[in-house]
Amino acid sequence: MKSLLLLLLPALLFAQANKDESGIKSVLNTQITLWNAGDVKGFMEYYEKSPNLKFIGKSGVVSGWEATLQRYLKSYPNRETMGTLDFDIQEIDVTAGKTAWVLGKWHLTRPSVGDAGGYFTLLMKKVKGKWLVVRDHTS
Amino acid sequence: MKSLLLLLLPALLFAQANKDESGIKSVLNTQITLWNAGDVKGFMEYYEKSPNLKFIGKSGVVSGWEATLQRYLKSYPNRETMGTLDFDIQEIDVTAGKTAWVLGKWHLTRPSVGDAGGYFTLLMKKVKGKWLVVRDHTS
Repeated sequence: MKSLLLLLLPALLFAQANKDESGIKSVLNTQITLWNAGDVKGFMEYYEKSPNLKFIGKSGVVSGWEATLQRYLKSYPNRETMGTLDFDIQEIDVTAGKTAWVLGKWHLTRPSVGDAGGYFTLLMKKVKGKWLVVRDHTS
Repeated sequence: MKSLLLLLLPALLFAQANKDESGIKSVLNTQITLWNAGDVKGFMEYYEKSPNLKFIGKSGVVSGWEATLQRYLKSYPNRETMGTLDFDIQEIDVTAGKTAWVLGKWHLTRPSVGDAGGYFTLLMKKVKGKWLVVRDHTS
């Protein structure tokens, strides 16, 4: 049994890594859907609800879930400024099935106020079986 | 013996985490010293020498060690533009002793051309026992 497990281990780890990657992609796709439905609070459900959450943006570091929500609400007060979000996920790097580093491109299509976009890197953690964003560096 | 190991395990993990954190701080402090000696190539020794290295800056993603070096040489062609570097390391998050996410503030004191600064987040990996930067998002 032990040697069978050892033989299967690489395949099992690979399957788990794929599962983590698709779990993360699913979270990010859900965020896109919620954003495009005008649901900023729903979008924020995939950020860890913690005072430790950090958002690093062009005006510095925002600390905590509540302050990050307020920043989003202030920066995107209506559907026109929210526009239509799209992510181009370029890389997902999972360590030990526990944390993941994600690189993506974001784009907001906004016919009335002008498009916006750039890159983001995320630190995500599996919290109680669910992948959540714990650090977001957006530029 | 087994129960003794289990008893000691938290302390051992804590000691290892501290060791990783000080290893990472030491790398970043060495980078500061090298930068301030005008040694961009020395500074770059702590980036993984790989075509997979990624630097995410204000003009997008630079891929590969060589391209990242060229970007630094182009952005900082002389001692005046390099100035005096300082890092304020705000957070180091190590997973499984293998990867680390780092948040820091960078500042260049440059009397002749004007100061520059911002935040950086790094993905670092322990490669052959040494902590190296594999992803750098600087804004």
